[in-house]
Amino acid sequence: MAIQEAQELLEGNGTLPAEADIASLLTRLEGIEARLEQLEESPAQDIENQLAMVVFSGELDKAIAAFIIATGAAAMGLEVSMFFTFWGLSLIKKQKQYADKNILEKGFTAMLPGGSQSLNLSQMNFFGAGSRIIRKLMKDHEVASLEELMAMAQEFGVRMVACDMSQELLGIKDEELLDGVEHGGVATFMGDAAQSKASLFI
Amino acid sequence: MAIQEAQELLEGNGTLPAEADIASLLTRLEGIEARLEQLEESPAQDIENQLAMVVFSGELDKAIAAFIIATGAAAMGLEVSMFFTFWGLSLIKKQKQYADKNILEKGFTAMLPGGSQSLNLSQMNFFGAGSRIIRKLMKDHEVASLEELMAMAQEFGVRMVACDMSQELLGIKDEELLDGVEHGGVATFMGDAAQSKASLFI
Amino acid sequence: MAIQEAQELLEGNGTLPAEADIASLLTRLEGIEARLEQLEESPAQDIENQLAMVVFSGELDKAIAAFIIATGAAAMGLEVSMFFTFWGLSLIKKQKQYADKNILEKGFTAMLPGGSQSLNLSQMNFFGAGSRIIRKLMKDHEVASLEELMAMAQEFGVRMVACDMSQELLGIKDEELLDGVEHGGVATFMGDAAQSKASLFI
Repeated sequence: MAIQEAQELLEGNGTLPAEADIASLLTRLEGIEARLEQLEESPAQDIENQLAMVVFSGELDKAIAAFIIATGAAAMGLEVSMFFTFWGLSLIKKQKQYADKNILEKGFTAMLPGGSQSLNLSQMNFFGAGSRIIRKLMKDHEVASLEELMAMAQEFGVRMVACDMSQELLGIKDEELLDGVEHGGVATFMGDAAQSKASLFI
Repeated sequence: MAIQEAQELLEGNGTLPAEADIASLLTRLEGIEARLEQLEESPAQDIENQLAMVVFSGELDKAIAAFIIATGAAAMGLEVSMFFTFWGLSLIKKQKQYADKNILEKGFTAMLPGGSQSLNLSQMNFFGAGSRIIRKLMKDHEVASLEELMAMAQEFGVRMVACDMSQELLGIKDEELLDGVEHGGVATFMGDAAQSKASLFI
Repeated sequence: MAIQEAQELLEGNGTLPAEADIASLLTRLEGIEARLEQLEESPAQDIENQLAMVVFSGELDKAIAAFIIATGAAAMGLEVSMFFTFWGLSLIKKQKQYADKNILEKGFTAMLPGGSQSLNLSQMNFFGAGSRIIRKLMKDHEVASLEELMAMAQEFGVRMVACDMSQELLGIKDEELLDGVEHGGVATFMGDAAQSKASLFI
């Protein structure tokens, strides 16, 4: 019967606590929704499954470390973005170009590596012998070469961004850079870093 | 009529599911509140819109990178803190002081840069020529100089902390440091880093 | 009386808003639970009170910085993991071993430091004089030595992981490494980094 049912529903067969009137339920709900909103708007909610890297160094050993971390993270399902700045731009060069450059820019072009193949080690380089030894060791131990790691990174969809400002300062032309490289500034990096689980400066 | 109304409310015009008695509603609410509490107390809730940096290196190119990132992040609305340690203290020096120092401290004072103006490049420095070239290039391309970036950082309220321990080890006096620099230790940095969206070691 | 009570409960003594029938309450609850679930499954919820570091450099000054940060963070209650790769493996060596190594590996063994005691400074090393001066200064100022910091790190339960691949490339035997060091790869580091509040590449 209706009355009986209503009573039972309201009282939950006698287990209903005294405070359980609907008005207090509504207040409780409002409190809950306010707390939810606060959580949803908290800075933590910007975090995504991402990794952001600044690649500042232009040395072979650090380049290998950067791309092993990048491909490893991408293989684990993280979205990875690499921001190449200053000497790090050497990693993503495919060639040297002297045309349309002033004397200073030609000097940088001559002195800086023309791509990943000509990077030096940060220590024990011995005029290139160290780099060759590390590359030979990687081959002997069946570790992917830097160039293979870079190709993997591109296949995995790792975002590779060249720093506009560094490119301008060092006089590096877009045609000198690998295909598929994006262009951006510090805001591009910080945008990625601010929603990343980890950020590294290499 | 009252009975009719109660019945209708409870049954939601016949759409009310069977489990919808108030006791079960209360249980559900308790579950929700427990989950909310867990979310509110999770480590992620410590994250704020912050960026924390250790500036360990005392070289011009890394200093420029550090302050471009710092000012860029601050312009995007992030709170930024920079922790200057070891060679990084050279960036925030305003002068050299030899008085009240022992022989070792005087040696460090003589050999380390006396401020941002005398920093070297991490590579291709060529006894200072590289630094001068980079500074000239920044001017030619209308990029703010390191000193302008540092002034902007201070205007933007970037927190600049000198590492107490490094200052003591290298015998750097407070009077040698820029005005407005705070003092702190590793706990100062980790406190900031633990609530930052990104942390960088430069 | 039952009818009276039901009516009062439902109407909350006349303060009950019009939308407050139970069916709409249930819809609201479902919405709340869906939002909760989304928060609980957000990437941010992977964050723990952790700090992850890549120690790539094998220099005394960076080693000191790494272990001061590691022990400081551990003292503040963070779980810390350090991933030693490339030159960073020198920090966690306890001895050199030449047996069972090929000529290249013997060369690396000869040229790389045999442990934390023989690390050089990244600048102003002056053939080891710089390292000795920094160590003397730390002693004079009653700062824990690198070896004491490392022992503290181990006591605090800091996770120390040797990079498998680097160990293989540089031909470093397990017996050359400190006791208690784990072995792992980039996935070990990224696993830690992805749930850390801060990640550093040193």
